[in-house]
Amino acid sequence: MAANSILANGGKGPSPGRLTAVYSEVQTSRLNHSLPLPSVVRGPFKIVDGPLSSAAGNPDEIKKLFPNLFGQPSATLVPTGSAPSEMAGSLKVGVVLSGGQAPGGHNVISGIFDYLQDRAKGSTLYGFKGGPAGIMKCKYMELTSEYIYPYRNQGGFDMICSGRDKIETPEQFKQAEETALKLDLDGLVVIGGDDSNTNACLLAENFRAKNMKARVIGCPKTIDGDLKCKEVPTSFGFDTACKIYAEMIGNVMTDARSTGKYYHFVRLMGRAASHITLECALQTHPNITIIGEEVAAKKLTLKNVTDFITDIICKRAELGYNYGVVLVPEGLIDFIPEVQQLIAELNEILAHDVVDEEGLWKKKLSDQSQLLFEFLPQAIQEQLLLERDPHGNVQVAKIETEKMLISMVETELDKRKSEGTYAEQFKGQSHFFGYEGRCGLPTNFDATYCYALGYAAGALLHSGKTGLISSVGNLCAPVEEWTVGGTALTSLMDVERRHGKFKPVLKKAMVELQGAPFKKFASVRDEWALRNRYISPGPIQFIGPGSNDVNNTLRLELGAQA
Amino acid sequence: MAANSILANGGKGPSPGRLTAVYSEVQTSRLNHSLPLPSVVRGPFKIVDGPLSSAAGNPDEIKKLFPNLFGQPSATLVPTGSAPSEMAGSLKVGVVLSGGQAPGGHNVISGIFDYLQDRAKGSTLYGFKGGPAGIMKCKYMELTSEYIYPYRNQGGFDMICSGRDKIETPEQFKQAEETALKLDLDGLVVIGGDDSNTNACLLAENFRAKNMKARVIGCPKTIDGDLKCKEVPTSFGFDTACKIYAEMIGNVMTDARSTGKYYHFVRLMGRAASHITLECALQTHPNITIIGEEVAAKKLTLKNVTDFITDIICKRAELGYNYGVVLVPEGLIDFIPEVQQLIAELNEILAHDVVDEEGLWKKKLSDQSQLLFEFLPQAIQEQLLLERDPHGNVQVAKIETEKMLISMVETELDKRKSEGTYAEQFKGQSHFFGYEGRCGLPTNFDATYCYALGYAAGALLHSGKTGLISSVGNLCAPVEEWTVGGTALTSLMDVERRHGKFKPVLKKAMVELQGAPFKKFASVRDEWALRNRYISPGPIQFIGPGSNDVNNTLRLELGAQA
Repeated sequence: MAANSILANGGKGPSPGRLTAVYSEVQTSRLNHSLPLPSVVRGPFKIVDGPLSSAAGNPDEIKKLFPNLFGQPSATLVPTGSAPSEMAGSLKVGVVLSGGQAPGGHNVISGIFDYLQDRAKGSTLYGFKGGPAGIMKCKYMELTSEYIYPYRNQGGFDMICSGRDKIETPEQFKQAEETALKLDLDGLVVIGGDDSNTNACLLAENFRAKNMKARVIGCPKTIDGDLKCKEVPTSFGFDTACKIYAEMIGNVMTDARSTGKYYHFVRLMGRAASHITLECALQTHPNITIIGEEVAAKKLTLKNVTDFITDIICKRAELGYNYGVVLVPEGLIDFIPEVQQLIAELNEILAHDVVDEEGLWKKKLSDQSQLLFEFLPQAIQEQLLLERDPHGNVQVAKIETEKMLISMVETELDKRKSEGTYAEQFKGQSHFFGYEGRCGLPTNFDATYCYALGYAAGALLHSGKTGLISSVGNLCAPVEEWTVGGTALTSLMDVERRHGKFKPVLKKAMVELQGAPFKKFASVRDEWALRNRYISPGPIQFIGPGSNDVNNTLRLELGAQA
Repeated sequence: MAANSILANGGKGPSPGRLTAVYSEVQTSRLNHSLPLPSVVRGPFKIVDGPLSSAAGNPDEIKKLFPNLFGQPSATLVPTGSAPSEMAGSLKVGVVLSGGQAPGGHNVISGIFDYLQDRAKGSTLYGFKGGPAGIMKCKYMELTSEYIYPYRNQGGFDMICSGRDKIETPEQFKQAEETALKLDLDGLVVIGGDDSNTNACLLAENFRAKNMKARVIGCPKTIDGDLKCKEVPTSFGFDTACKIYAEMIGNVMTDARSTGKYYHFVRLMGRAASHITLECALQTHPNITIIGEEVAAKKLTLKNVTDFITDIICKRAELGYNYGVVLVPEGLIDFIPEVQQLIAELNEILAHDVVDEEGLWKKKLSDQSQLLFEFLPQAIQEQLLLERDPHGNVQVAKIETEKMLISMVETELDKRKSEGTYAEQFKGQSHFFGYEGRCGLPTNFDATYCYALGYAAGALLHSGKTGLISSVGNLCAPVEEWTVGGTALTSLMDVERRHGKFKPVLKKAMVELQGAPFKKFASVRDEWALRNRYISPGPIQFIGPGSNDVNNTLRLELGAQA
């Protein structure tokens, strides 16, 4: 438990980032963990362009939105005997972190920095502070070797912090241009999720349209795992977050089995897609796992989901097991059509009517919504009526789905008890694993993957590329064999109609019910439900057995591709 | 992420314990992790008795309660040239797990088993199933090498499971006697907390009084860390649980610093004493830590605690920090005298009166309790009135203290906003870390400590000792230098008067405000409050840097002793 001051300063004076931080032994050991690079970037390489690209959907609209970038080829780094001439010269590069944290972000920045140090001597790296707002307000700092060092292989985004602003309006684009000109930027790396990479592409298009030299490269970041495609096999942070959650799930499984009297209901971060829940299930083998995409595809109701859980609890009781573990994605209720309908109606009623104590207002609900509302536990009913966001809307995100399910399962089990079909005690314990996973120390996989993503982004900028997303592939092979390149962001885009206009979007990658990870899960879940096949992954290890494992989702998806 | 079937059987047929379990790579690697033993038990040793003992308090009453055991000396193992003669012969030994899980319990059993294998060939080890009830109902299984193997260095108590029953009445003691006679037991090891070790001593006294050969040895188990004394420097499980919680706290700290907008309020398991909270604070350096024992000693009110937190939040806001981390022990409100008073009054009122909607019932509260009740957030008020245990009492344990504090801090900050002394946004995020820590894979420290405790228990039984608690000391030195022996349980006891009778009790070890861990904390907390000195311990490592660290509490207490 020795705490180490990482620099001689030892904590005096105002804190310049982590230069004066106090580190645990594990943090210190991670600082000096050396990161392997794919062999293609270790020697001289050149960039080879692929065929012209199209779009994921509506290519005509995408072409209209990105007249300068549409159709551009993706790029692949290939080894060459001699350093290519176009790679000479120093660069001025900016980097920005956008959106929620994901373990490994600091290593992307380290990768860019080291690329510039190694391959473009005399370059400067600026970090924009607090997300895209830092670009618009030209709030930045120069990132030096000394400043970056304490963040290597560390969790969090606090090196330059992040933000959720978007560069959208003509004024905001103008501000970004001014910043690029003021700093004489050759390039900008945007580290973010689907929205941020869409934004990166719009910025690239805009700079190109204005004949500015600044180029823009994106990097795939999100613990949710919903930004991926063939060329970008995974987003960084997903691996670490899932392993942190799986450690905790494994522990409560052992708890469940030891005490023999609790059902642990675990809600896991991940609103739009259920990748985290699926991966954690594959790592730990819980008795019950609800995947939002399946609920949506089968058009299940909340009652269906409740009955599904209750049925398994009753079957387990017959086998003598009055305990278990249930995984639920944070966004579950967003996947249930009837809940969406109820919430839409509630928003309408709450905006225009008085909620009378006698409950007359309920008559304004449709029959189906009225039934659903009455089915909900009282605490949830109150939450729906009382807690609203600044726009007056129901705050769906605040609903503690795991507690709601426990309450509904209790009610259903009481009913079955009175009918004589269940005779045991049910004790639910609720858990939410979210913030704990976003900022952990990155796994060896995320640390290495991020470093390669950053290094690749540097190489792409250096060779004059813009509007690409850094792409590192062949991730189940040894690091030396990883492929490195960039994929045209426009080739991943489709359009959505919003307020009568076409907006470009990078489609979120949902859990595919025909994909290898879900199919694997579906083939074993019945056994997991009734037999106890729990696995306890244990804490993330940085050395020794298990320390270089790749998560199941990535392994299964890449295996299925091969 | 390879999952390993640990035996060829591979999961067919009904599961005999973990013989057919599927293990993660880390679990598998832990199975084969070899455990060092203190050098004194590696060669021939003899038992040396110390001076006659007394009691922690009221020796006359303890003598009356334990006429056969009172005054017996503690025992120390010392190396000898030749194997002592009284150590020959095989034994029949029973073992029982009592109370809540703590990481390392399986290793205590492994230690007993290996002692018997190594030193008392032909011995038999029985595991009583489901806690002390297993003794009373004679529910047991013979523990074989093959059966025990998959549990080595693994978390949980599922090898034989645990229970919370006590052996108290004359009939229950009779049942225990019958079991001891039926199995021809030479000895019994009781692995448990303060109550269970008190019970172990009563059982030892009873067997001795009846001239039975069965002897009883206790082992100190509880993640809460409140069973300890000079001879027993720590209870097992505390080290692992604190390190699991500290990993999560370190992660939310990084989250707080990265987003710059959340106050994470973390409630930590540990109702009776605040050792876990104190240890986690020493490991992670949060901005605010509430220690129950200090709140009680200073007779603080809930308003005092709220103001203390709010003051620091306001000071931090002036420094530009609108984020932070607050640690709170699970048992906080049990330490606040006025809350105890309110709850006593509420129990009285709820038992006899009707709670009318107009609130006239509140007039029956004392002035102070009325004020406190009005000060509580509405959700807590409702919880106090609605949720009652089977005896009709208010369920204090169900109160989510961290959410209550967030709500009270919000109210206080709103007041200060209207007074113009605070002008920022406050966003509280609540966490409860409890079940996640009880069943984790034991740290190297807990794995080794437990193995030594079990080995010592075997040696003590083998040499004819009874009524001792297994004692392994000098824990900050290398394992070879650890001391091994047993401490007279009666010497640790005092009496409490319950229902007009004296009951023996092993006093819970509370956080000592004059102890080295608290003094260390008190000397630095002001700096932690306003400066961000966060440490992220990271996940527990089994190999490499940090993997053999001893927790701060133990290190500081042993250092202060030396």
